[in-house]
Amino acid sequence: MNPVIEAILERRSVRKFTDVLVSGEDLSAILEAGRWAPSGLNNQPWRFAVIRDAHARGELSRLTHYGRILRSCALCVAVYYHVPSGYNRDKDILGIGACIQNMLLAAHSLGFGAVWLGEILNKKSAVNGILGLDDAYELMAVIALGRPDERPESERRPMDELVVKSM
Amino acid sequence: MNPVIEAILERRSVRKFTDVLVSGEDLSAILEAGRWAPSGLNNQPWRFAVIRDAHARGELSRLTHYGRILRSCALCVAVYYHVPSGYNRDKDILGIGACIQNMLLAAHSLGFGAVWLGEILNKKSAVNGILGLDDAYELMAVIALGRPDERPESERRPMDELVVKSM
Repeated sequence: MNPVIEAILERRSVRKFTDVLVSGEDLSAILEAGRWAPSGLNNQPWRFAVIRDAHARGELSRLTHYGRILRSCALCVAVYYHVPSGYNRDKDILGIGACIQNMLLAAHSLGFGAVWLGEILNKKSAVNGILGLDDAYELMAVIALGRPDERPESERRPMDELVVKSM
Repeated sequence: MNPVIEAILERRSVRKFTDVLVSGEDLSAILEAGRWAPSGLNNQPWRFAVIRDAHARGELSRLTHYGRILRSCALCVAVYYHVPSGYNRDKDILGIGACIQNMLLAAHSLGFGAVWLGEILNKKSAVNGILGLDDAYELMAVIALGRPDERPESERRPMDELVVKSM
């Protein structure tokens, strides 16, 4: 199996982290992976807010049931939809999903663990308030990142449930 | 640079293909990569329709300005949102974007070229008619796949435009 497919199949959501930090160089490589995602019309509607600051992560942690993860990770990246850069909501959001996946795979390939947090979207405007971002920025996900302190198992639907037509 | 990040940075949309076909084994590896994408609540709302048949690709090609690509590729994969498996439209679509990106990266890693086609979504219901799929399946993208016959250039916004906050 080639290393790209291996990374895709072995990546898991990691919710427990060691105390080891993420270097600026590694963070840049992860964001760079997100930057090179494809998007409709190449409009690149994704934007990133990087939160290392423990106080800010503490404030964010009060907005989600998964606050422990935001407090214990090395840093988190809030991934935003920059609405004025968009042209079609569905297609823009698909591209942002591709961008997030690039970052998760890059993180995994560098030995980090990460989890894609979505439940915090219930408090989108409060997150924007903490980060000082206006309504042009719509929160899509928060990625929590750090050195993994667990190796979770997961599963997926069988392939024959997914392939609904072959012709 | 590690091979995962290298694939992420080097992948480009490929719209010109040679006549070489895609083996069943390679197609399975690409779909398997899509299968292992993350999704909210692990609901995996993606479904795949594989279209090798030249007549069916010819019919689809009349529904888009990019028909030449659908006629000249080795095969295409229509990626669907299975609406009854969803729980939150935005989050489901983000997951499908991650799924598509996994397949594009897997294809690239295996030496294939691929392009993510979105304009055909203007004719969603006609595509469903050709493929014999009902309204439970909402078309999200068509991926055209084959051996690349071009090496396109592309560009992205500078990183300092993407990082809107760092704290």
